Formats: sequence, C-alpha cells, structure tokens
Amino acid sequence: MKITLIGSGNVAWLLGKALQQAGHDIVAVYSPTAAHREALAQVLPPAKAVDSLDLRATGAELFVIAVPDAAIASVAAAVRVPDGAIVVHTSGSQPLAALQGIAGARPGVFYPLQTFSKSKPVDFSTTPILIEAEDEQTLQALQALASTISKEVHQVDSLKRRQLHLAAVFACNFTNHLLGISRQLLQQAALPDTLLQPLIQETIAKAMQNHPFLVQTGPAVRHDQNVIEEHLRLLQDQPLYQQVYQLLTQSIQDHSQKR
Amino acid sequence: MKITLIGSGNVAWLLGKALQQAGHDIVAVYSPTAAHREALAQVLPPAKAVDSLDLRATGAELFVIAVPDAAIASVAAAVRVPDGAIVVHTSGSQPLAALQGIAGARPGVFYPLQTFSKSKPVDFSTTPILIEAEDEQTLQALQALASTISKEVHQVDSLKRRQLHLAAVFACNFTNHLLGISRQLLQQAALPDTLLQPLIQETIAKAMQNHPFLVQTGPAVRHDQNVIEEHLRLLQDQPLYQQVYQLLTQSIQDHSQKR
Repeated sequence: MKITLIGSGNVAWLLGKALQQAGHDIVAVYSPTAAHREALAQVLPPAKAVDSLDLRATGAELFVIAVPDAAIASVAAAVRVPDGAIVVHTSGSQPLAALQGIAGARPGVFYPLQTFSKSKPVDFSTTPILIEAEDEQTLQALQALASTISKEVHQVDSLKRRQLHLAAVFACNFTNHLLGISRQLLQQAALPDTLLQPLIQETIAKAMQNHPFLVQTGPAVRHDQNVIEEHLRLLQDQPLYQQVYQLLTQSIQDHSQKR
Repeated sequence: MKITLIGSGNVAWLLGKALQQAGHDIVAVYSPTAAHREALAQVLPPAKAVDSLDLRATGAELFVIAVPDAAIASVAAAVRVPDGAIVVHTSGSQPLAALQGIAGARPGVFYPLQTFSKSKPVDFSTTPILIEAEDEQTLQALQALASTISKEVHQVDSLKRRQLHLAAVFACNFTNHLLGISRQLLQQAALPDTLLQPLIQETIAKAMQNHPFLVQTGPAVRHDQNVIEEHLRLLQDQPLYQQVYQLLTQSIQDHSQKR
C-alpha cells in the first residue's frame, strides 16, 4: 500500500519502518516540526517530508495518524485526504469516533499493542495489532495490511479496546509503580537494586504460564498476620505505601476466599 | 561438604540437586513422610532416607532445614546434631534467632532468593543466595558453600532480610495479583488471555533497565482525568478493584509530584 505517516514519534518511526520492510511504500511524512519530519523521511526513503496537513497530493491510499492522544482531535479537524482514502489512528484509548468528520475518509483504528522506544527494536511479528473500521471493506483492507507485519491481528471494537486499556493499566502501569516502590525499599535498606530481578522474572514467567490467581504466594494469601503486621510497621513512615500494602492484601484475601 | 537435608519440598529438591552437582555429598534426607523422604533420597544417591530428627549419626557437617516457615520452630526444637555442626534454614522471612536453642549447633541462614517449582529447572548460578551467621568462621563456611553454586552471594542480616522480604511482596506477590486482576478484566471483555503478554514483558524489561519511577507511563502520571473517570466507571461493579485503581493512581501522582 501507499502510506502517508502523520506524526514523527516512536510509533511513527517503528511502525513506518516495519511497514516499509514488509514492502509497503511510505510516500510522505508529516510533522509540524521540520527537523522531526525530515529526520523520519530520511530513514524511510523515498518518503517526502511535508509541512501541510493537506495531504491530498501525497498519492497515498492510507493515512496513519500516529500522534499523542491529545493531538488526534486537532489533526482530524485539519487533515485533508483524497476521497475514499483510509485514515487510521494508532491509539489504544481513543474511539473510532475520534476520526469522524474527516471529509471523504474511511476511518479506522490500527493499534499496535506494545510500548515503543526508538532505541529498542520491536518484534512486530508477535505484537498484537488491533483493528477497527466502520465497514467490511475497510476492515478487510486493514486486516490484510496488519497481517503483512504481525501474526496477531484482532478485530476489537472501541468499547472492548477501552476495557483492554483498563486491563493494561493494571498489568503494566500499576505493576511498574509497584516495581518502583520495591526498588525504593531496597535502596532504603541499602540493598543492591538488582537483588530481586531473578525472582521478579520468574514470578512474571509463572504468571504468564498460569492464571496468576492460581499461583498467588506470599503472606496475604497465607493469612500470615505476624508477617503482615511486621511489614506494616516497617512502612510506618510511608503511609501511602502502607495503605497500598493493606488494600492489596485485602484484595488478595478477598479473592482467595471467593475461590 | 557432607550435608543432610531436612525437608522434602521444592527448595530441598532443587537446592539438594544443585549442591550435589557442585560436588557436595548429600548424605541423608529427613522428612516425616516416608514417601517424600524416599523419593528425594532416590534422586540424590547415595543419600539415605532417615525417619528421625536425631541426625547425629548421619555424618554430616551441615544440616539444611528446608521446611515451611511455620514448621521451622518445631524442627529446631526437636532436631539433634553433632557438636559444632552448622544448621541453617532457607527462609527469607525468619530471623537467624529462629534456630537458637539447637544444642551444640552453629546456626545460620542460607536463603536462595527465588521461587521454586520442581517441574521447572532453576539457574542457581544467577540466583542470589543470602547468608547470615553468628560468627565469622560459620559465615566463611557458608560463603564458600554458596559460592560453589551461585555467583551472587550476599551477607544480609535478619533486619535487612525482612526489608528485602517486604520489597519482594510488592515486586512479586502484589504484582502477581495485579496481573490476575488484568487477566480477569480481559476475560470479562471476552478478549484473549494472552493479548497483553508482549506488552507486559516489555514493561518488565524496561523496569529492569531503568528505575521504574523514571519510565512510568499511563493515565495516572499524565493526570488524564477523562480516562481515569472512564476506567472507574468500567469498574463500578467491582468496588475493591475500583479502590485499588484509585489508590495506585494517587500513589503514582503523589510520587511524580515529589520528583
């Protein structure tokens, strides 16, 4: 397919490269910042860097809006594309409806479910790509496109994508925060930062192979009140962490009771 | 070293095998359950299965108590060892003092910081082993022993081991629970269980390479109130998860404010 990228962040870079490697033509790159669009166009030859959101002359059939969530609405309001072109955004938290009102466009979602940094290559073949469109023809086009870079293509509507995003907040954002608290506690005890890493890796591997609720360990699920009280005492100068400890202990116990 | 194992659970199996492979002699295995001690003795030839806690005749210089935390006290009260023998427990949450009162013994701690299942081989060479003893000579003996199976040997006293255990509850037990909630939310949305796995793996990898607080992402750290309220609405029938969401969001925001 002939594709124009709108945006020059991590998603635009890595998705652009993956699409090009799969044989698609990245014909143009738009970013409001000259240095950004030129840098990205340079790594995706012969893509042209363009400085206007009137993209009707780029010759693309597909326009990929890969910008921060908060900027999608303003891009959608300003962009001009040829009649019948497919325009997708790449966001997990925004509905398909965020692209309503782009004149003549067939809106869609093309959401690669992964966290991206330019410095770290991503294996797109195992990265789930979640697609959505209003009509069957557009959906099939997105399905075909996604299949050229990933083995894991799923049709997921906006409501389910929102539920997925909520699940990701628990599994990734909140988990990361707990790992941060843990690291801070190690530092407070003058223990090496890396001491828990083998245990963390094994814990995650187990939680992938089983339902995590079935392999829960620790003082909460054992109702080991002595250890729990000792831990709460160790946290007495960090009341918010103490609350987190209490609530998660309660949630673990509540859950194990129900089973 | 000549070693007797007390216990026949996952730690006894895997640690016993690792010590034997490193060239030590497992001379005897004690468990109150005949089938258990015989099964373990069989995989550690020529170890003898013994049915009494009077272990003075086993010929060992080191006795490893690898039993559940709650059983350490009763083993310590009943065990008999030769004068001057080293007796260690393998627990992260119990103090060295748990072994006080074993007549003639030099007490110690030999704690492999990992989660074990018999079905899954463990790379002991990268598993941290935390040791503690009352006197320098015992400490050196444990350091020498631990170094034969692991490159990561640390002397950690009982208070620090308790702080470490607290950090592990956050990084492993609580993290596992959040992964369980996430999996449940995927199931409620009729989405595939495995959909988030590539994202989770990348999130953990990033949290290992950086301080997790520095790579925090998501609606909480962005103060994206619209998304946060939408997520809380999706959780309205699960009030405890709603509380967990609110408290962790508050903790993330509190932390990012302080930085």
